This record gives sequence, structure tokens and C-alpha cells, in this order.
Amino acid sequence: MKFTLTGTGSVKGCPVYGCDCPACIKAIMDPFLRRSPASALLESDGELILIDAGLTDIQERFPAGTLKQVLLTHYHMDHIAGLFSLRWGSAFKISVMGPDTSDAPVELMKHPGILDFSQTTTQFSPFSINGVKVTPVPLSHSRPTFGYVFERNGRTLAYLTDTLGLPDETLTFLTSNPLNVMIIDCSYAPDMSEPPGSHNNLKDVMELHQKIEPSRTILTHIGHELDNWMNANPLPKDIEAGHDGLVITL
Amino acid sequence: MKFTLTGTGSVKGCPVYGCDCPACIKAIMDPFLRRSPASALLESDGELILIDAGLTDIQERFPAGTLKQVLLTHYHMDHIAGLFSLRWGSAFKISVMGPDTSDAPVELMKHPGILDFSQTTTQFSPFSINGVKVTPVPLSHSRPTFGYVFERNGRTLAYLTDTLGLPDETLTFLTSNPLNVMIIDCSYAPDMSEPPGSHNNLKDVMELHQKIEPSRTILTHIGHELDNWMNANPLPKDIEAGHDGLVITL
Repeated sequence: MKFTLTGTGSVKGCPVYGCDCPACIKAIMDPFLRRSPASALLESDGELILIDAGLTDIQERFPAGTLKQVLLTHYHMDHIAGLFSLRWGSAFKISVMGPDTSDAPVELMKHPGILDFSQTTTQFSPFSINGVKVTPVPLSHSRPTFGYVFERNGRTLAYLTDTLGLPDETLTFLTSNPLNVMIIDCSYAPDMSEPPGSHNNLKDVMELHQKIEPSRTILTHIGHELDNWMNANPLPKDIEAGHDGLVITL
Repeated sequence: MKFTLTGTGSVKGCPVYGCDCPACIKAIMDPFLRRSPASALLESDGELILIDAGLTDIQERFPAGTLKQVLLTHYHMDHIAGLFSLRWGSAFKISVMGPDTSDAPVELMKHPGILDFSQTTTQFSPFSINGVKVTPVPLSHSRPTFGYVFERNGRTLAYLTDTLGLPDETLTFLTSNPLNVMIIDCSYAPDMSEPPGSHNNLKDVMELHQKIEPSRTILTHIGHELDNWMNANPLPKDIEAGHDGLVITL
């Protein structure tokens, strides 16, 4: 499996429009430091699966016909915005799997275009795609949200955003087997949060890292406040910040 | 007044993702021929008004603080998609005026961020902004939609998308005074339409042009089928196709 972080930003992204904090100024100056909406690309058996669709340039990134599958964590706009223009393509279908579509925007369901929403994911009901076993796990967010655990050849990666902590049954699932890589929502610096609480801060992630004990924990859905904190503080051992374009091969 | 067409495409845009028709192939090869979501920029007294917000790169086009006002025709996604990321800016407000927000997406209204939706437009209730008199006029679309008539120094421009034909009261309003420029929805080639009928084809526009008699009629919200038709056929006298970036000074 080749896993690429196509976006590692919180809902505000980085730079935040109009913000003059050091992290945002740096990101304006250096495109490498910018953070697009949290999303990822899984490549396996020569096929692509885009995980979340908040990027609004999906058509430019993927020549027509190269992307056949999108997997959604939930239906907040920073995870689905790119679907609204993508749907008006022609000549082929793109399967979009995610939680129960009763939570999806009415306009998208009414006019799905080339998007096929007929398959939904169910918690702890694994399915196989492109040789990868995928298990949806419930997360703790402001609306129904799934993380996904990807397994192939004894190597396991969990993609867990958006969430604040984890439900007990997800924690039990993740601690029951060795986990190589955990990619997890870390929107805020330690001890920081914004109401309503629906995203981890670094302290929340450190607690989960200690419980789950993955070989490698990678932060995503990062807000500019955390970027500023990281510019002044080192991250704990075995925890690293993701960045747009980071490739994980396992 | 300086009026720039920042987008002249139908909901599918041009090129249509995955389409290999001649118009789409040409647009892939030549960026000048691409059509972004229908939208426009009005400059007056040194201030900017963005008319519709379907462009998803508003933050890149307008440095923070330079855009203070957005005017919406209606709440279909190809006219508001850019607001979802724009709202998470900081340090300043952007006024977004349009029809009654009861038709706007719940997620946008629940978390408006820096966007101020407190002012709505009312049909035939003119208001003044940056020295321009603006009159909202009802259009005939699948959801509540306003066109806008802009007047300054005796010069008048009507921006009329999305619509199929025009309601009688709008037609009466437009024929009661000389109109210099009419920018109007023309999604389809003559005799072509897609159900449900909510956009003009060229024949519809020709009828309206004859009734209203503007000095200049400019087509917008153009679909690739019309582009293909125009590649083989001339447009009638005093009717011209808009293109992304077209500037009208009056």
C-alpha cells in the first residue's frame, strides 16, 4: 500500500485567509507549508482510492478515468466540497462510499451526476477493495463519522479524522491488533480546543497514542495554532506532523 | 462601472470532466477557452463587488481585505461553493447579500464565520452601493433567483443568470428604460434544453433580446454544447458570447 496525505489542514486550512500569525505568514511565503483540506490517497494494485473529497481541484489532479473510488469519513463540507463539481463529469462513474447518505447534502443526493452513492459503509463490517481489507470504525465527531483501518500483507494503517478521542469500541478494536501507522486528527495545540469539542488537541492524541501504541503516529487536520506551537516545541517520540504530499509506504 | 466576467460556464463548466467533444478538447489545450462557474466582478469607486461565489479560489484571487461585498443570485452550489472555505478567514467581515437565506444551505448559515448574511435583497427594492444603484429583479429558475440591474451615470447593465425566459414583471421593468448591456444565461444551443427547464437556449435569448432591445447582449452560463454550436455557426447581430476575463466598461 502507498498512502499519500493529499491534505493535512483543519477546516480553516493554512494559511487562514487574512491571518497574519507566524504560521500563516510562513505558509503564504512557502507553498510547501500550506495545508489543504484533510484527505489522502491510497494506491494499491495500481488503483486509486481518494479518502475524503474536500479538495476542490480533484478534476485537475486526476485525469478522467484514473479515479474510480472515493471513500468518505463524513459529510462536512471540508470533506466533500470537491464532489459538487466532480459530479458533472461525463462518460464514466465514480463510486463514493461513506456513512449513511441520509446525512449527505440534499443537493448532492438529488443530482449525483457521475457519482454512485449506492454503497455505504457500516461500522466494523470490513470489505475488500484493490486487495486491501478496509474496516470502518466509528469516531467521536459532531456528526456520524467513520475512520478506516486498512490492512494488507500483515501491515495495518488507521486513518482517524475527524474525531475528539475515540469511542470505546473503536479503541478496543485498535488495541486488539498491532498497528503500524495511525494517522489522526490533531487540530489544536495541547490544552487548546474550540467549542463544540469535536477535534483532538495534542494532549488528546498523546493519550490515544499511549493506549493504542502504534509504531508511528502521524498528525493530520492540523490548525494554524498547532503549527505555531510546533514551531516552538518538539513533538513527543513516535509522533510526527503530517504535511501535504507526505508518502507512507507499507 | 467596470464589469468583469470572472466565470461564464454552465454548472458543468468547460472542459467537462472526461468529455472528449471538440469544445472540451479545445478548452483542455487552451486555458483561455475554459469556463469557470458563472460569476462577475463589479468595480466602482475603487471597491469590488463579487457577483456569485461559485469560484473556489476566491481567497487566492482577492488578497484579504480587498473584497468586502458579495452579491448572490441564488443558492445553487455552482454559485456559492467558494463561500464554504472563504467563511473561515479571520480579522474582517465580508457582507454576502442575496435572496432570502431560508433557501441557503444549513451548514453555511449555522457556521457563517466571517460572512455576514444579515442583509438580503428584495425584488424591485433598489439599493445603492459604491455609487451604483442596484435593482434586484426576479428570474425564472428552479429555486428563488434574482438578476440585478446596475445603473450609474445613466448607463445600465443587467446581469440575468440563472433563468429560463423572464417573469412578466421583470420583462416590463427591463423594457421600460434603455438598457446598454444585458448579460444573460444561455446554457444551450438553439432548440436544445435539459429537463427540468431552468436555463435559456440561444433561441430563448434571441426572443428576449428582440423584446428588450439592449445595445449589447452578452451570453454567460454557457455549456459545452453551445460552444460546439458556436464553433460552427455565427451568433446573431448584437449578441456575443462572454468569456472568462471579459471586461465591460460603461
